[in-house]
Amino acid sequence: MSKIITISREFGSGGRELGKRLADELGFAYYDREILEELAKKEDAGDWLSQSLPEQNFAAAIPLHFGRSFTVYQSTATQQTVKLMVAEQKLLCRLADRGNCIIVGRGAAALLEQWHPLSVFVYADMESKIARCRERAPESEHLSDREMIRQIKQVDAHRAKRIQWSTGAKWGDRKGYRLCINTSGLPIKTLAAALADYARIYFAGEK
Amino acid sequence: MSKIITISREFGSGGRELGKRLADELGFAYYDREILEELAKKEDAGDWLSQSLPEQNFAAAIPLHFGRSFTVYQSTATQQTVKLMVAEQKLLCRLADRGNCIIVGRGAAALLEQWHPLSVFVYADMESKIARCRERAPESEHLSDREMIRQIKQVDAHRAKRIQWSTGAKWGDRKGYRLCINTSGLPIKTLAAALADYARIYFAGEK
Repeated sequence: MSKIITISREFGSGGRELGKRLADELGFAYYDREILEELAKKEDAGDWLSQSLPEQNFAAAIPLHFGRSFTVYQSTATQQTVKLMVAEQKLLCRLADRGNCIIVGRGAAALLEQWHPLSVFVYADMESKIARCRERAPESEHLSDREMIRQIKQVDAHRAKRIQWSTGAKWGDRKGYRLCINTSGLPIKTLAAALADYARIYFAGEK
Repeated sequence: MSKIITISREFGSGGRELGKRLADELGFAYYDREILEELAKKEDAGDWLSQSLPEQNFAAAIPLHFGRSFTVYQSTATQQTVKLMVAEQKLLCRLADRGNCIIVGRGAAALLEQWHPLSVFVYADMESKIARCRERAPESEHLSDREMIRQIKQVDAHRAKRIQWSTGAKWGDRKGYRLCINTSGLPIKTLAAALADYARIYFAGEK
C-alpha cells in the first residue's frame, strides 16, 4: 500500500512549506490545491476542479440552513458543491493508489483514512504566524497586526467549516491526527528533516 | 544549555514507556515521579517528595474554594501542597541544569519553559488505552471496559487539574506543546525510535 502523509495546517504556520520540503526529503509526490487543479486539467478529469471554489470563499457557498433541512439538497449551489467534493475525493483516492505522496489540505486526513496516512497537523502561535505571513506576502504590508490576525482567523475558520462539513472531522482536534507539530520560532527546514526521519521509521515499523 | 524533553501523557497512552525508550535511544537521563522520589532521598533534599501526594489523590487535597478566595492560603493543607510544588520545581530545575534529560509528568513542560524543552504530549484513542492498561496491569482484569474507561478518565482529569492549578497551563491543549503524538495501534518501540531521530535533528537545528 502507498505511504501517504497528509498535512493539515493553520494559516501562516508553514505547513505547506513543510509538506514540500518533506516531499523532497522522502522522494514522495506532492499535491496541494494548485497542483490538483493542474492534474485534473491534464487528466481531462472534467472541469470540476477548475470550477472549485477558492478555499476562502467556500463557506459562503454553503447555504446557512444546510444540516437543518433536507430541502437543501434541492439547492443547485449545494448540489454542485457536493458534486465537487465527491469528485475531489475520487481524485485523491486515485492519486493515493498511484504511489507514495504528501497531500496538503483538502481534508485528506479524513478522506484517505483507509490508507492509514501519517496525518500531521501543523500549527504555531499567532506571533510566528504573523511574522511568516509578512515574510511571504509583502503585498500585505499595509495591514496592521490586528487586521492580519483577523484574516488568519478567518481563513482558519473557513477551513474548519469546510472540513467539518465535508468529512465530519473536527479540524485541528489532535485526536484526528497521528502527529501535531508546533512550528513556532523554528526553521521549517529543520522540522522537515526531523519529520522525514520520523516518517521513515514510522512507515517501516507500522504493524 | 541542556537538552530537555518533557513527556506529558494520557493515562494508558504509553507515554512513560515512550519516555524510557527515548532516554535509552538518546543517552539522556530519565526522570519520572518514582525516580524523583528516590533522588530526593539520596540527595537528602528533605522529605518533601516522599511526602508528596499520589497523583490520583492530588485533586482531593486542593480545597474546592481555591482561586475564589485568598483565605485559602491560610489552609495548612494548601500551604503544604504549594510548598511541595515549589520544592518540586526547584529539584526539576537542578536536574535540568545538570544535563540532557527526559522528564515524564510533573508539569515539566510549563515548569521548565526557560530551557525551551521539546515538550511532547502523548495520547491515544480509548480502545488502545484500554488494551494497554489490560496488558500492563493484569490485576485489573476484573474491571469491565466501562469501569476501566471511568478510571482512565479520572486519572486524566486529576492530571489536568493538577497541571492547571500548579502551572496555569491547559493540560493536553496542543498549543502548550511542541509535538503531540498519537500512539493508537502503533508499537511504542517504533515511535520511540522515530521520535529519537526527530529530537536529534530538532536540537541540532534549533535557532
